[in-house]
Amino acid sequence: MSNTVAAYAALSAGAPLVPHTIELRDVGPLDVRIDIRFAGICHSDIHTVRDEWGPAKYPVVPGHEITGVVAAVGSAVTRFAVGDRVGVGCLVDSCGECANCVRGEEQYCSNGNVQTYNAVGKDGKITQGGYAQSVVVTERFVCHIPDGLALDVAAPLLCAGITTYAPLRRWGAGPGKRVAVVGLGGLGHMAVKLARAMGADVTVLSQTLKKREDGLALGATAYYATEDPATFGSLAGAFDLILNTVSAPLDLDAYLSLLAVDGVLAGVGAPAEPMTLHAGSLLFQRRTLAGSIIGGLRETQEMLDFCAAHGLGAQVEVIGVEQINEAYERVLASDVRYRFVIDTAGLDRGRSNG
Amino acid sequence: MSNTVAAYAALSAGAPLVPHTIELRDVGPLDVRIDIRFAGICHSDIHTVRDEWGPAKYPVVPGHEITGVVAAVGSAVTRFAVGDRVGVGCLVDSCGECANCVRGEEQYCSNGNVQTYNAVGKDGKITQGGYAQSVVVTERFVCHIPDGLALDVAAPLLCAGITTYAPLRRWGAGPGKRVAVVGLGGLGHMAVKLARAMGADVTVLSQTLKKREDGLALGATAYYATEDPATFGSLAGAFDLILNTVSAPLDLDAYLSLLAVDGVLAGVGAPAEPMTLHAGSLLFQRRTLAGSIIGGLRETQEMLDFCAAHGLGAQVEVIGVEQINEAYERVLASDVRYRFVIDTAGLDRGRSNG
Repeated sequence: MSNTVAAYAALSAGAPLVPHTIELRDVGPLDVRIDIRFAGICHSDIHTVRDEWGPAKYPVVPGHEITGVVAAVGSAVTRFAVGDRVGVGCLVDSCGECANCVRGEEQYCSNGNVQTYNAVGKDGKITQGGYAQSVVVTERFVCHIPDGLALDVAAPLLCAGITTYAPLRRWGAGPGKRVAVVGLGGLGHMAVKLARAMGADVTVLSQTLKKREDGLALGATAYYATEDPATFGSLAGAFDLILNTVSAPLDLDAYLSLLAVDGVLAGVGAPAEPMTLHAGSLLFQRRTLAGSIIGGLRETQEMLDFCAAHGLGAQVEVIGVEQINEAYERVLASDVRYRFVIDTAGLDRGRSNG
Repeated sequence: MSNTVAAYAALSAGAPLVPHTIELRDVGPLDVRIDIRFAGICHSDIHTVRDEWGPAKYPVVPGHEITGVVAAVGSAVTRFAVGDRVGVGCLVDSCGECANCVRGEEQYCSNGNVQTYNAVGKDGKITQGGYAQSVVVTERFVCHIPDGLALDVAAPLLCAGITTYAPLRRWGAGPGKRVAVVGLGGLGHMAVKLARAMGADVTVLSQTLKKREDGLALGATAYYATEDPATFGSLAGAFDLILNTVSAPLDLDAYLSLLAVDGVLAGVGAPAEPMTLHAGSLLFQRRTLAGSIIGGLRETQEMLDFCAAHGLGAQVEVIGVEQINEAYERVLASDVRYRFVIDTAGLDRGRSNG
């Protein structure tokens, strides 16, 4: 098993992704080496390789929606064996000792967690993500993919799934709750599926009615166009929870007006531009504006188990590695229903040709 | 018992308050007539009589921090008897039937509640507040003032007390919680007392250190000046709950940065100007921005009982009716520690002289 493996990488800002090789670390006592089968394409990948989120550490191998099969385990690994179906999300390490890590919220690690790619690992090396043949990850950051959940539709759950599952759980999506999902993209389509499976009544708020049939098929009971100003009048006070999956700045006062007393508007995207709101939009109905990022490892496993129990996966379009750059353009044009997933098998062919 | 009683009123926008007489309604079956002893001066009174919150219904008799003694009860009143010590806050009626009223949150009544003054009552008449000898209020909106709580220091509890008690309870102030109170005025000084009595560790964040000794005497364990930029660096992530009692726009990103994971920044003031924030201030630590207004009647009684049990009243400066206009100027100059309370006894003299 060689430490040199094939990958796709951006070598500089603005450059297309190209075949590349990376060096994995040796499998340490607590490490799991995973043969990657699928990697989802998240909008974050594009922001990072295009240097839109601060100086990237080129070459960048993106990908934090990873599924595969265990190829090797370290001597002290207890939870995984060779052949296990597993997943890795946005994080590959954290301090493990702060209050947030101890309660299983590694995404809020006080001492700085390690992201799956474009970060510096505990060994001082730049982390490389899922657009590769293999990855070595410490056991604590690996999840089991339950039986019955195919690896392709499971991949996006590791980011898009947990990013929407965690706020839906935290702010009480469930029977009797009226949940609105803003935006029907990679995150939004998972939010609709998850909220519905939790028992909530789900409404989609999308810019247009273009994806209305999809939204209803995914489990929404209503679908409104936010480009129609009448939407905001007719839905005043209609929701207990609004999950905003859109990364563009939102008209907070307008969306807050759609909440009932004690309602929550939770966002999972972070536009760079500031947003404005009037205090009165919150206080006269005791409303809440909140946000969250991904989820901890315990909750990520819980989400995967929940998805398997409810037969939920992402709706994916599987592509080969040679289609990554084209897929990026289509993501930017919102031309994907609802997540691209890279089949990494093509990397083997690439390597055997090389 | 005459329905014509003495009061102090603003007869037009910008005019000083002057002696005036008002007509009370007859005591209906569910009504309680109260001889008013004390009325607190809330900043809202000043906004209203000066027409800063939309067209006021002159003449305006302000006052929604009312304590007194029951003088008469209607035939169907069950909870009060003549001679009972009672209080009335910001509301004197609501629909009583909507989901919010049913669960005791009349402040969020879906069908529009009736404010204590400058509103239209169910009888179609303009409501008149506590700067008067007497008031007639439906039983449901009257609270008992527990033994041991003096009527002068109890008056401000009906607005300043419940306005801070409710968010402290809702967002979990209690043992082991680090609570910051922004602003040490009428609301802020009650917030410090209440949060401390709930068992929280309390810090005051005030513009300057001018009131530091007071803050510590009220129960805070720490006191910081927000005009000192170093405050924000040294307190990063330090609080579980920040209660903002200031009505001016806040630098939300700066204050949110003082919250730990899952922390809440709750506001009870409604500046007219919009405020700005970056989504990242919320999501990277799963923080919450929220607001609330006063509290329901059930919770207002609970707050009064809590204050009596803990020996808490407002810190007041009692004035005569002839000092109201001067007191308004001092409120605007933040020259009060910490609440003016009008002793309405002077209204009798005024009437007997008239």
